[in-house]
Amino acid sequence: MENKLLIVGTVAYDTIETPYGKRERVIGGSGVYASLSARLFGEVSLFSTIGDDYLEEDLLKLRNSGIDIDKLKRIEGEKSFFWEGSYRNDLNNAETLKTELNCLLKFETKIPEEFKDSNFLFLANIDPDFQKEIIGQMNNLKFSALDTMNYWIETKREKIFELFKHINLLFLNEGELKLLTGEKNTFVAAEKLFNSSLKNLIVKRGEYGSILFSKDNLFILPAYPLRKVVDPTGAGDSFAGAFIGFLRKEGEISFEKMKEALLFATVSASFAVSDFSVDPLLSLDFETLKIRKDEFLQFLV
Amino acid sequence: MENKLLIVGTVAYDTIETPYGKRERVIGGSGVYASLSARLFGEVSLFSTIGDDYLEEDLLKLRNSGIDIDKLKRIEGEKSFFWEGSYRNDLNNAETLKTELNCLLKFETKIPEEFKDSNFLFLANIDPDFQKEIIGQMNNLKFSALDTMNYWIETKREKIFELFKHINLLFLNEGELKLLTGEKNTFVAAEKLFNSSLKNLIVKRGEYGSILFSKDNLFILPAYPLRKVVDPTGAGDSFAGAFIGFLRKEGEISFEKMKEALLFATVSASFAVSDFSVDPLLSLDFETLKIRKDEFLQFLV
Repeated sequence: MENKLLIVGTVAYDTIETPYGKRERVIGGSGVYASLSARLFGEVSLFSTIGDDYLEEDLLKLRNSGIDIDKLKRIEGEKSFFWEGSYRNDLNNAETLKTELNCLLKFETKIPEEFKDSNFLFLANIDPDFQKEIIGQMNNLKFSALDTMNYWIETKREKIFELFKHINLLFLNEGELKLLTGEKNTFVAAEKLFNSSLKNLIVKRGEYGSILFSKDNLFILPAYPLRKVVDPTGAGDSFAGAFIGFLRKEGEISFEKMKEALLFATVSASFAVSDFSVDPLLSLDFETLKIRKDEFLQFLV
Repeated sequence: MENKLLIVGTVAYDTIETPYGKRERVIGGSGVYASLSARLFGEVSLFSTIGDDYLEEDLLKLRNSGIDIDKLKRIEGEKSFFWEGSYRNDLNNAETLKTELNCLLKFETKIPEEFKDSNFLFLANIDPDFQKEIIGQMNNLKFSALDTMNYWIETKREKIFELFKHINLLFLNEGELKLLTGEKNTFVAAEKLFNSSLKNLIVKRGEYGSILFSKDNLFILPAYPLRKVVDPTGAGDSFAGAFIGFLRKEGEISFEKMKEALLFATVSASFAVSDFSVDPLLSLDFETLKIRKDEFLQFLV
């Protein structure tokens, strides 16, 4: 039987400024970026909470791309999550100018019945308490992965550690890893998390690539070489979505499969940042992704 | 006939402070670090200028390691080059506390006759005018590589560009590359240098590894994963020395050989930073280096 993939994250509007221009109220959100990459490998359902301002034409773009968004929870009287950020001074670090949680304050953690038997789950960056409630409702998981961010590490650190025993993989960027562990050295920091019963870890290093850790294994991968980064928003979510989308398609969980998933994750992120918002991902197909993955391999050992 | 390798750089005393302690007036210098790695692959001659304070026991350590130091030029009445730096706040960036050029002001650029037919040459970071004078005396070069630093880029930028047509390879760290080209993107910056007739380029990215560029080729390599960096001094020189030492041993110059050289360069640097000063390199042998290189490959694609 086909494995089912569920992604839970945000569906948002973003206003983004980068050295290449500014875009107002464009499609964004961790759940959207992750789903748009995951759908390249097969079916994906996106569960999230949106406000009554989310445009039908934008939802249609997601639906037409192949994402199942039928169970998005629309909250009347609330606006959608909104984020405004600038990369004008540094393409590697977003300066947050505005965050309006809006409908996220009423995030729906009650998972629709038809999603509870999903075998693959990606929980994008939302409140760790919500993440725990969602995992608790799943009854047929083969593989679950989690993302988080500095804000939750600072405010709900212990909750994140508690989640380790319920998940198969944690995504962190290098700064988050250091914040979470208090360790400056990436490899020492990773070991600390494995001592806290984490099973697998992916450390994202932006333009320098990523590292996949399991308790006894290590895989270091550079980033795909890019001459131009237009909008880094969603790079990490696109990365995670492709990773779990590939694993779901393969069906088999092994370190070797995760290595291959990391290659797809890396090239998926390289497309995501090549233009504003979700535009590059909306027009991407699996064949184009695979061609870049094969090209990428030629630059490596 | 055996290829001959000449390394020209500094032979210095360093006072170094890192989070792991402080060492006063220990063996240092770009020429020393490079030679100590290069000698793992066969004979190497080191040419440099030292003061009358350089201790015989320190010179003996270099000689016993297999480096030909017979033609080091000792300048009476001058002290040796001295550098004092601290990595206490940031292991990735040295804070220079003191630089005493001393005998470097009278650097001997007249190359001894027996070195002029060397086939492989590494010019470590010294005044680009000196580098040009030295290259001009060589009459049998197969491969020459050059290192430089921010100070020369800021004060003798055009001289460095002029050197491109006389050398086969330039080593730069990522910050130097951006300073030299005025470009923020590493891949765009590299292309600029190739448009200025550079043949090959290695961009060093510290803990994130390095990139080897030729006009039509690209090879991206992460750094060897290290849980502990004690003293980063000399990492780049050790890296360069191993690179050219390997190429000299192989005798053949091709992109594939340079890729393998980069692997050895990377692991050589990983040893160099594992303890203070040249201690790890003095006790290193080729077999140990090769074991780590093979181990390293297991972490890569």
